Amino acid sequence: MTERPHVVIVGGGFGGLEAAKRLSRLPLRVTLVDRANHHVFQPLLYQVATAALSPGDISKPIRSVLRRRRNVSVLLGEVARVDLPARTVHLVDGAAFAWDYLVLAPGSRHSYFAHPEWEVRAPGLKTLEDALEIRRRVLLAFERAERAETSDERRRHLTLVVVGGGPTGVELVGALAEIKRYVLRRDFRRIDPREATVMLLEGGPRILPTYPVVLSERAEEALRRLGVEVRVETLVGAIEPGAVVAGALRIPADTVIWAAGNVTSPLLRSLHVALDRQGRVEVEPDCSVPGHRDVFVVGDGAAFRHDRRYPSLPGIAPVAMQQGRYVARAIGDDLRARPRRPFRYADKGQLAVIGRGQAVADLGRIRMSGFVAWFIWIFLHIYYLIGFANRVLVLFQWAWSYVTFERGARLITSAWRPQASAEPSRNPAP
Amino acid sequence: MTERPHVVIVGGGFGGLEAAKRLSRLPLRVTLVDRANHHVFQPLLYQVATAALSPGDISKPIRSVLRRRRNVSVLLGEVARVDLPARTVHLVDGAAFAWDYLVLAPGSRHSYFAHPEWEVRAPGLKTLEDALEIRRRVLLAFERAERAETSDERRRHLTLVVVGGGPTGVELVGALAEIKRYVLRRDFRRIDPREATVMLLEGGPRILPTYPVVLSERAEEALRRLGVEVRVETLVGAIEPGAVVAGALRIPADTVIWAAGNVTSPLLRSLHVALDRQGRVEVEPDCSVPGHRDVFVVGDGAAFRHDRRYPSLPGIAPVAMQQGRYVARAIGDDLRARPRRPFRYADKGQLAVIGRGQAVADLGRIRMSGFVAWFIWIFLHIYYLIGFANRVLVLFQWAWSYVTFERGARLITSAWRPQASAEPSRNPAP
Repeated sequence: MTERPHVVIVGGGFGGLEAAKRLSRLPLRVTLVDRANHHVFQPLLYQVATAALSPGDISKPIRSVLRRRRNVSVLLGEVARVDLPARTVHLVDGAAFAWDYLVLAPGSRHSYFAHPEWEVRAPGLKTLEDALEIRRRVLLAFERAERAETSDERRRHLTLVVVGGGPTGVELVGALAEIKRYVLRRDFRRIDPREATVMLLEGGPRILPTYPVVLSERAEEALRRLGVEVRVETLVGAIEPGAVVAGALRIPADTVIWAAGNVTSPLLRSLHVALDRQGRVEVEPDCSVPGHRDVFVVGDGAAFRHDRRYPSLPGIAPVAMQQGRYVARAIGDDLRARPRRPFRYADKGQLAVIGRGQAVADLGRIRMSGFVAWFIWIFLHIYYLIGFANRVLVLFQWAWSYVTFERGARLITSAWRPQASAEPSRNPAP
Repeated sequence: MTERPHVVIVGGGFGGLEAAKRLSRLPLRVTLVDRANHHVFQPLLYQVATAALSPGDISKPIRSVLRRRRNVSVLLGEVARVDLPARTVHLVDGAAFAWDYLVLAPGSRHSYFAHPEWEVRAPGLKTLEDALEIRRRVLLAFERAERAETSDERRRHLTLVVVGGGPTGVELVGALAEIKRYVLRRDFRRIDPREATVMLLEGGPRILPTYPVVLSERAEEALRRLGVEVRVETLVGAIEPGAVVAGALRIPADTVIWAAGNVTSPLLRSLHVALDRQGRVEVEPDCSVPGHRDVFVVGDGAAFRHDRRYPSLPGIAPVAMQQGRYVARAIGDDLRARPRRPFRYADKGQLAVIGRGQAVADLGRIRMSGFVAWFIWIFLHIYYLIGFANRVLVLFQWAWSYVTFERGARLITSAWRPQASAEPSRNPAP
């Protein structure tokens, strides 16, 4: 008996995890490598960043998700490069794995458009660490405002700027507007958090650019009612310490969050194949790398030419999940010596939440906004949350904060440091 | 009308928070300063360190706890020193506050007995940051064992040592034993987490030294049944990278947790009054600093000579809470020009949990161990947890993990770092 073929999956996000689940049913050995020990339910990451949910509510250890799939091994490790000719994956710690099939699902990071130095001043929102850092900065901003000595300083602390009007940016400003209006309202003595400015800067002509125009308009209206300053056609030219510069506009602000533009993992460069401007591999109709039928790219890392509606599929969870499942099917076809059928994306529409009882939904023929869209959003997100306990807990927490305007995770925590060698100040500074 | 007297409280732990609540009922201005924005329910901190609860479950923003007390201001800041003659508190950032009354409730840190360099290798458990760091190290230990190349390396990763056999140490090893036995049992492919060694080192002749001997014995028995190696009369002589040395014994272990010995905040040194060996102020019967009727020390920072049973009151939550309330009463007595009555500690007993359905309780005349003690423990801890939502959530999570052996917060997170300037490896290393 020869050994079962070995499939290496890089990345435990939506695409990689779905691939692993489906591949576990086939006569294969599967190894999933991720540099985090947990899968994150990214659509709710903004809720961690805005102190509504705890990290544990929206994430689960990858190895416990795959516990019962006995032919799947999970490894905590970071992949440094892929050696296509040698069919080997190399980890940064020197370990290497040979593959019979390779599934690359490395996800993406934010793109700062050739300004990597902006990241320190304006973190993006991709990982739990990002979310906790944003939460820390937002909560610290109000604490600092309470202790500010001049009104300029206070103003700067109380201005929260989100760059990028896609779904993540919209969700973030919606939640920030609620925090300043309801959650923190009575907590301070010297400042009134309601006077804080929450600003959304979008470079293009409208927010939610992938949605129908009417829903963009409704979302903008809803945000304005929540007290968010929405500025479209406002391209950020510089992020300086304490200020965002956009054209002639200079906005004094200490807290800036980046939700504009993605770039894929630098790992894909090690393939030495053609990449598009966002660093994505232009994959074949079966999600494989051109010239390498044994190597697949799924999710944010793949540029998939689909049809007229999607000249390139968007970097969202449903695409990644469907591609992950598809790749497992394609490998199954190989095992049975059947031809692979090309990948087709089943578009179920898009949903973005704005705030309490406010969302927009574009479900193909049906477009809606307001409470019903919000209710669908809640239902779907609870439904897809991994793990039963999480679902009940998160639902309870939402119901609780809906009624009380409380947020359960308003914690400013920073990195652990030994006390013995601590600097005079242990107050975290961004 | 003269301005109301100003009370400055340093520390938002059990003592400081109780003082603030009671003082808010008097015609005073109250300022509470803490370097964290949250109050932590310390008795459950070990549950965060062992991935059972999330930080948000056991903590709450101090300013939201005191939201309705309009004469209380909360400030995020770290106190550098107290200037007794000038009656002023100085913060590390240069701010200063004059007081009419000062309540010092700065808590304590772990004492490494003149070996501060041990802290990096063996963190203690006092803050949320400590708990998250311990959680990260414990979970990483199993991940590293799964990838270990030699059996010696695997053994070292799979040995978890807790130093100190007081309640915190006992609670930690109990929870660690459950993790290795039940929680992680089926999650790994190359290692069997049940083979991990959980070790409790105690320098004295028995664990839980403040409990009656019979309960110490029962606790030790219960721990042994859970698979914990308990070693008494084992004084740690050195903590080296990768090993703990105790007498002739050299235990190869990467994961060491410190639960032995406390020392109070260095802040108390700035009082320039007599301190005992643990750095505590030997307070008067009214909890005031000798010679300074307007300055009180409560909780871990106070050495309070009580009676024969307690030549010095222990550093536990009930003592701090009762002293906090007492101080508010004493200040109220002053306002009404009534003499202060001395503080009396109402001893309600002590409780320590060991594991699922296992605890020991010393309630004065009643001593018990086992399930009933555990049930009392659960009830009391839920009852005293701050905030209704927390209580219901934590109860639900306990019930859930009791039935399923799951732990909801098994996340390895580390400090946020910009990706652009990231080192080759982003895997966290302790």
